[in-house]
Amino acid sequence: MPVTVRWSDMDAFGHVNNVQFLRLLEESRIAAFEQLRAGGPSLLETGVLVARHEIEYLRPLAWSARPVQVALWVTGIGGASFDLGYEVSDAEPGGPEQVHVRAASTMVTFDVATGATRRVSDREREVLEGWRGEQVPFRRRAGA
Amino acid sequence: MPVTVRWSDMDAFGHVNNVQFLRLLEESRIAAFEQLRAGGPSLLETGVLVARHEIEYLRPLAWSARPVQVALWVTGIGGASFDLGYEVSDAEPGGPEQVHVRAASTMVTFDVATGATRRVSDREREVLEGWRGEQVPFRRRAGA
Amino acid sequence: MPVTVRWSDMDAFGHVNNVQFLRLLEESRIAAFEQLRAGGPSLLETGVLVARHEIEYLRPLAWSARPVQVALWVTGIGGASFDLGYEVSDAEPGGPEQVHVRAASTMVTFDVATGATRRVSDREREVLEGWRGEQVPFRRRAGA
Amino acid sequence: MPVTVRWSDMDAFGHVNNVQFLRLLEESRIAAFEQLRAGGPSLLETGVLVARHEIEYLRPLAWSARPVQVALWVTGIGGASFDLGYEVSDAEPGGPEQVHVRAASTMVTFDVATGATRRVSDREREVLEGWRGEQVPFRRRAGA
Repeated sequence: MPVTVRWSDMDAFGHVNNVQFLRLLEESRIAAFEQLRAGGPSLLETGVLVARHEIEYLRPLAWSARPVQVALWVTGIGGASFDLGYEVSDAEPGGPEQVHVRAASTMVTFDVATGATRRVSDREREVLEGWRGEQVPFRRRAGA
Repeated sequence: MPVTVRWSDMDAFGHVNNVQFLRLLEESRIAAFEQLRAGGPSLLETGVLVARHEIEYLRPLAWSARPVQVALWVTGIGGASFDLGYEVSDAEPGGPEQVHVRAASTMVTFDVATGATRRVSDREREVLEGWRGEQVPFRRRAGA
Repeated sequence: MPVTVRWSDMDAFGHVNNVQFLRLLEESRIAAFEQLRAGGPSLLETGVLVARHEIEYLRPLAWSARPVQVALWVTGIGGASFDLGYEVSDAEPGGPEQVHVRAASTMVTFDVATGATRRVSDREREVLEGWRGEQVPFRRRAGA
Repeated sequence: MPVTVRWSDMDAFGHVNNVQFLRLLEESRIAAFEQLRAGGPSLLETGVLVARHEIEYLRPLAWSARPVQVALWVTGIGGASFDLGYEVSDAEPGGPEQVHVRAASTMVTFDVATGATRRVSDREREVLEGWRGEQVPFRRRAGA
């Protein structure tokens, strides 16, 4: 999906800041949750928290007025959590698509009223199953 | 080291936003690089890029006027990269220290003039060796 | 023009934060400067700085997935500066357009090489003249 | 009061971004409200909203590890609103204090439960009276 990059996402080095890439992933995740609504409440409303991120920066991104493309998919579904994969890519006009970032997140479902962890609901599971994809092909892994 | 948390680091859920924790880590990293200067240029100036982050969220953090404590150490030094570990903790007045976030980053050294990867200099290596610590004890690891 | 509002533009009160509205205005200004390019360099590249902002908040804005509308126009052109007016509005589906924010900025043109103030160029003046509009109808003015 | 400037407050031009100055003002305002607490609830909790900002940029600010100084005072108190003045200054080691920004805000008191405007309470008025200062000496004023 296209995600808008703001001019202010650049830092003093003149590239999109590494932290702001996680902001772009947040935007893509929230847009995906909105699409998954299907007339019902979104995952944002039924309660989901970020438990973990892993992100690799492959190539610096200079700001331009065009949005980047963020692919987002599900790599795993547990009892009270699920895993997401992402790829952020961009193509200059007439140029090839290039991958700038790969990332993964673990999301935990929780009960908005009590704050306690809760099981992924049947409806959520059904929707998430429709978004299944491969594990993220990370290149590096610290301590590994 | 103490790192200031801004009121605006909270999101609509009323806790410090997951992305903003990476901003706090950036602040701690830049403060550490400033300390490492020792009269010479900082790593910010000699050229260093983020190649990878891994971050685990253990406990939500509500904003307060007091800073959080960020521990930062070196977990590995390669030819043209090094790895950092972090722990973000906080104690309410009279309460125990609690860990909110653990994280790791891989940093790549590059030549500011050419943009190409460069070797960690002897001076940088010496300074980084003085900051050695253990691998970050992550609990989760996606796809593992 | 439509401007994307990020979920993270909300603060802990659950509305778009007052500071983030200035970020939305920045986005609209940069998009306008891109449109004004006409094959030549944008004002961002020929050198322009913010000298002043004035902004009134008329109605809180809750985040939604749809963009807001930002109207942007020129209210004055001086020797080495020009003034912009803005209005940020939004309409819920089926609802009336509502104004959330009105604002004005003074921009100063400067020479990127020397850092010194420079005159608005003929080409810039011609382009800016095409965007002329009324003074911003502010309601309040401190100290007045 | 000292206010921390983050490295990320710089934009691609390598100076503290104009919007981020309003973030620094927000930080100073919230710190002031915390000081005004005096054992009671802060204005953040009793309900206060930004109705207006006016800000002038006098001199660009490059990031450094030291905080800036923000002076904050009260320039007016109305029935259901009050006005603040600010000055952001900084001194390089051994150099003179220099003013980078002057600003003013109008704050409106509201009832957190109902969302309606409410009168400034006697306790708030007493505290605010203690912070009285002069009108902000703005240089420019659009449409004036």
